[in-house]
Amino acid sequence: MIQITVIQIDNYGPWTVTPQPRRESDLQALQARLYADLNLMFGMHKGLVFYTRFDNLIAITNGIDLLTHQKIQDSIKNRYPITISMAIASSKTPYKAQKLATKKLQEHGSAQDEGRREVLDVANELVMDGYVQLAHIDINNITERLTDLESAYDTYINVNKVKLMLMEELKKYDAMLFFIGGDNFMCPCNGMSEDDFLSVFEKIKEKCGVELKAGIGIGKTAEDASNLADIGLELIRAGKTGRQVCTLKQEGCEILSPLQKRQIITD
Amino acid sequence: MIQITVIQIDNYGPWTVTPQPRRESDLQALQARLYADLNLMFGMHKGLVFYTRFDNLIAITNGIDLLTHQKIQDSIKNRYPITISMAIASSKTPYKAQKLATKKLQEHGSAQDEGRREVLDVANELVMDGYVQLAHIDINNITERLTDLESAYDTYINVNKVKLMLMEELKKYDAMLFFIGGDNFMCPCNGMSEDDFLSVFEKIKEKCGVELKAGIGIGKTAEDASNLADIGLELIRAGKTGRQVCTLKQEGCEILSPLQKRQIITD
Amino acid sequence: MIQITVIQIDNYGPWTVTPQPRRESDLQALQARLYADLNLMFGMHKGLVFYTRFDNLIAITNGIDLLTHQKIQDSIKNRYPITISMAIASSKTPYKAQKLATKKLQEHGSAQDEGRREVLDVANELVMDGYVQLAHIDINNITERLTDLESAYDTYINVNKVKLMLMEELKKYDAMLFFIGGDNFMCPCNGMSEDDFLSVFEKIKEKCGVELKAGIGIGKTAEDASNLADIGLELIRAGKTGRQVCTLKQEGCEILSPLQKRQIITD
Amino acid sequence: MIQITVIQIDNYGPWTVTPQPRRESDLQALQARLYADLNLMFGMHKGLVFYTRFDNLIAITNGIDLLTHQKIQDSIKNRYPITISMAIASSKTPYKAQKLATKKLQEHGSAQDEGRREVLDVANELVMDGYVQLAHIDINNITERLTDLESAYDTYINVNKVKLMLMEELKKYDAMLFFIGGDNFMCPCNGMSEDDFLSVFEKIKEKCGVELKAGIGIGKTAEDASNLADIGLELIRAGKTGRQVCTLKQEGCEILSPLQKRQIITD
Ligand SMILES: Nc1nc2c(ncn2[C@@H]2O[C@H](COP(=O)(O)OP(=O)(O)OP(=O)(O)O)[C@@H](O)[C@H]2O)c(=O)[nH]1
Ligand SMILES: Nc1nc2c(ncn2[C@@H]2O[C@H](COP(=O)(O)OP(=O)(O)OP(=O)(O)O)[C@@H](O)[C@H]2O)c(=O)[nH]1
Ligand SMILES: Nc1nc2c(ncn2[C@@H]2O[C@H](COP(=O)(O)OP(=O)(O)OP(=O)(O)O)[C@@H](O)[C@H]2O)c(=O)[nH]1
Ligand SMILES: Nc1nc2c(ncn2[C@@H]2O[C@H](COP(=O)(O)OP(=O)(O)OP(=O)(O)O)[C@@H](O)[C@H]2O)c(=O)[nH]1
Ligand SMILES: [Ca+2]
Ligand SMILES: [Ca+2]
Ligand SMILES: [Ca+2]
Ligand SMILES: [Ca+2]
Repeated sequence: MIQITVIQIDNYGPWTVTPQPRRESDLQALQARLYADLNLMFGMHKGLVFYTRFDNLIAITNGIDLLTHQKIQDSIKNRYPITISMAIASSKTPYKAQKLATKKLQEHGSAQDEGRREVLDVANELVMDGYVQLAHIDINNITERLTDLESAYDTYINVNKVKLMLMEELKKYDAMLFFIGGDNFMCPCNGMSEDDFLSVFEKIKEKCGVELKAGIGIGKTAEDASNLADIGLELIRAGKTGRQVCTLKQEGCEILSPLQKRQIITD
Repeated sequence: MIQITVIQIDNYGPWTVTPQPRRESDLQALQARLYADLNLMFGMHKGLVFYTRFDNLIAITNGIDLLTHQKIQDSIKNRYPITISMAIASSKTPYKAQKLATKKLQEHGSAQDEGRREVLDVANELVMDGYVQLAHIDINNITERLTDLESAYDTYINVNKVKLMLMEELKKYDAMLFFIGGDNFMCPCNGMSEDDFLSVFEKIKEKCGVELKAGIGIGKTAEDASNLADIGLELIRAGKTGRQVCTLKQEGCEILSPLQKRQIITD
Repeated sequence: MIQITVIQIDNYGPWTVTPQPRRESDLQALQARLYADLNLMFGMHKGLVFYTRFDNLIAITNGIDLLTHQKIQDSIKNRYPITISMAIASSKTPYKAQKLATKKLQEHGSAQDEGRREVLDVANELVMDGYVQLAHIDINNITERLTDLESAYDTYINVNKVKLMLMEELKKYDAMLFFIGGDNFMCPCNGMSEDDFLSVFEKIKEKCGVELKAGIGIGKTAEDASNLADIGLELIRAGKTGRQVCTLKQEGCEILSPLQKRQIITD
Repeated sequence: MIQITVIQIDNYGPWTVTPQPRRESDLQALQARLYADLNLMFGMHKGLVFYTRFDNLIAITNGIDLLTHQKIQDSIKNRYPITISMAIASSKTPYKAQKLATKKLQEHGSAQDEGRREVLDVANELVMDGYVQLAHIDINNITERLTDLESAYDTYINVNKVKLMLMEELKKYDAMLFFIGGDNFMCPCNGMSEDDFLSVFEKIKEKCGVELKAGIGIGKTAEDASNLADIGLELIRAGKTGRQVCTLKQEGCEILSPLQKRQIITD
């Protein structure tokens, strides 16, 4: 079971243009800092946040209780001109968890409902004994092949193409994909196998020639999983793995049999 | 003429994994704050920065001189564990300007060259009498059609699809496209006409059903253009324009004849 | 028992002038953000940090373990151009605890020792069953009496005079005093009684005419104590207490008998 | 002529306790970041801000026009839960300038007037041809004499004693004094001579044994003056000056004759 929190700025659209459109560089700074702060605060409790659309963010929050969520919500209100709403859900796969969480949030009203402020709700239950599986996906040798060769914008377009392909392929496995800068993607992927990733990477290579690798971490929390995924990636870089995926598992984290995995997806 | 600055973190890849991989929530906070600070600092001189890949950023810097660039570069060194290199270029179109800037930067060595630090160089010349044309593109009614209906992640995928389509279509006009949060995109587009945008929007609507609108601002600086674009967007929202584009121009900013425009692209 | 962490930027003096003096506005921003981040990160675990000299900070850290300290130390290294060392100590009074902690830190080398980096050490032991007693001290009616009447700088001098008097008087009780903005002071004061405060306030009133009040909170952590102190202050403001001090205590926090208290000071 | 801006958070006191007292670690983070941002933003235009009481700040703003002030005011509103008011004044001495600025601000209503928001006003006129004189004052050898020897808090008390003595002595010269961290003070001191400083330092040495030195910079803007002051300090450290003060002057900045100086104070 993975626990996902969906975060939404309350009634943000109207605020950005009231009484007149606010300066865009300020809005960019506001959004980026909100994201940074959420990562620091959830990070202090081993969570991980993805910026997604900046006004709607998705976090992995295994091990983080309701009180901590509330404290973070409060802290944002105390330091920002806007407030946030949050809904928490857990499920066997990341995609399902965020879907449940979004639904719970939507029950409380529209993103642009003037009356809805600082919702904090739980769709099903907080995960006690679950685990987080995270793949840190990286493009092989982007520096020589793109960054040092192509224009900054063309490299950027390339990364965006790979990103969208990955998003679409990985959704078939009920996994999510987020860009985390450079040529790196983070993919919450409870239930996926190494072979699943290899076959996704194969498809992408065929379509656009880009080669990928992934460290996969399985841990009690997002931070544990992410650390293990990073080490996996370094092992691949060091040539210590036969293939372009490498899974590391924290002690005490059960992985599932192929049968169980298949079941998760078809649930 | 538009002036573009390409910004690159020096030797960032190796740093993120030395001596061992750094905590991802810290890296996300670092990158987001770097972006926020660059926007505040360039913003104080009417520039605008886009996060792009976070380790490679693109800024519109008309009216910002070399000394101010150097001050910003210094300020980053003084407050961050990393340093940045920058190259500035100007051209008739945004795409060409960033291409020239990137090339200038690449001449100084690889993004992962240990020896290259704090490059600051100019490809051709700083723009004195140019203008910035910016389109603020927005999805119609995303709140009711997606945010309040679909799951957070599905909405996100949708926005990414639109983004990639826009990137590809707009590149044909030598324009660039950046996501700025929510359902909003910012498009430096010197040389494009309203009809160009309408025909791009038409294509996107056909492909995926999403309807777009754009305020277009033409000003001496990125900030001026962006403010005008925002007002244009509000005029469309208020039903004060016959169509889904609205261009506003700062006094003293020459726009080009269709002939001149065509020439820019084919240059 | 109160747990205090002494935090010191490593070899900061030389860094500020290498290779040449760094821009002061950058240094101010760096120091202020370091302080803000430490408060957010310790705050996520119910601690409270005081900026003190900005390069040497003092935190109340009851309930915060070594691993969390290490994580914070790491996070600073990952996001700042400087690193920090920390030493933790506990004692019956705040003053003694910080003294033990400083000594432990000093054992590892000078603040300007080039070789000393990221020390993390514990003087005696982490507090398990202790409590934090915090007084939130506030000047009566500063707005009408000073802020709206005197020049900004004269009001500032006044606040500094009160601050220094408070520091000197409170040290007699082994308490510390920190300015937290406006006309507010925070005083870790395990072992002090309400009468102690009243007699300190009396002295200050005699010396300079300024009248003070204090909410006093006793809680498991700095945050609990601080919240209670704030409520105490509001009760005084609302006229619900006979006098200018009001102590609130979290359940499960033992307070000491006058005898025990006297013993603490003479220990 | 020096130009001073007095900055005040609007109606801050009531906000901090509405609807109930806000978490202190959040307030500390809020105030510290506000200060950092103001320094970055004014700093981009060569100004320098001092945190003073955090809710009331004092800035040196020679060369910074009204529009830039307004932009900064706007940017704070766009990114913080509070707003700020500002008044600008110029005078021959720093103390007089802040006094005029405060008075102008007070004319618009109380710091805790609910109706007063985002005041921006000028007391007399913006300085065109003035100069900033800044002394960067530093305690000799604090590391060996205090930091590495005494407890963190005792060193802090010592620094506060020196600070208050300096404030009181320097006020006689119409100069202001601000703590900028470590053992450093910044003193806007238009009109003071090196001998004035030496005699102030002599007094302090007699009273408490602490020896001081000061680099003094005279420049068009706070940044220019501050840079020169820093260099002066390094020259003293390097033993290149006969005495504990060293003044450096930017070309084009007139200094005054002793006669003129005496007149300034008695004005
Ligand atoms: N967020 C994040 N970004 C990273 C991390 N590691 C690398 N990056 C980014 O990825 C970019 C490219 O670095 P690398 O992946 O090391 O470079 P490469 O040329 O692709 O080399 P290989 O991946 O080793 O083939 C860097 O500039 C960073 O922006 C990480 O752990 N987290
Ligand atoms: N960066 C940025 N984001 C904005 C701005 N205006 C709106 N947004 C974002 O866009 C999201 C959607 O807001 P709107 O575009 O107003 O909502 P909508 O439902 O699409 O409504 P219409 O565009 O009026 O049809 C908001 O939550 C914000 O994240 C802006 O000026 N800058
Ligand atoms: N850090 C911090 N500062 C506060 C807090 N409450 C008030 N302040 C500051 O104190 C300043 C003065 O506010 P008050 O103490 O409410 O005003 P006052 O005029 O002294 O009124 P009384 O204290 O009620 O007599 C405000 O501008 C704030 O800067 C708080 O909880 N924390
Ligand atoms: N804000 C600021 N603080 C500084 C600067 N230089 C030094 N400091 C602070 O001052 C502290 C003490 O450093 P120094 O003054 O170099 O040390 P010292 O032992 O007193 O040595 P001397 O001054 O050379 O006798 C450092 O830890 C910093 O906090 C500066 O330029 N700006
Ligand atoms: Ca790579
Ligand atoms: Ca929209
Ligand atoms: Ca008060
Ligand atoms: Ca010193």
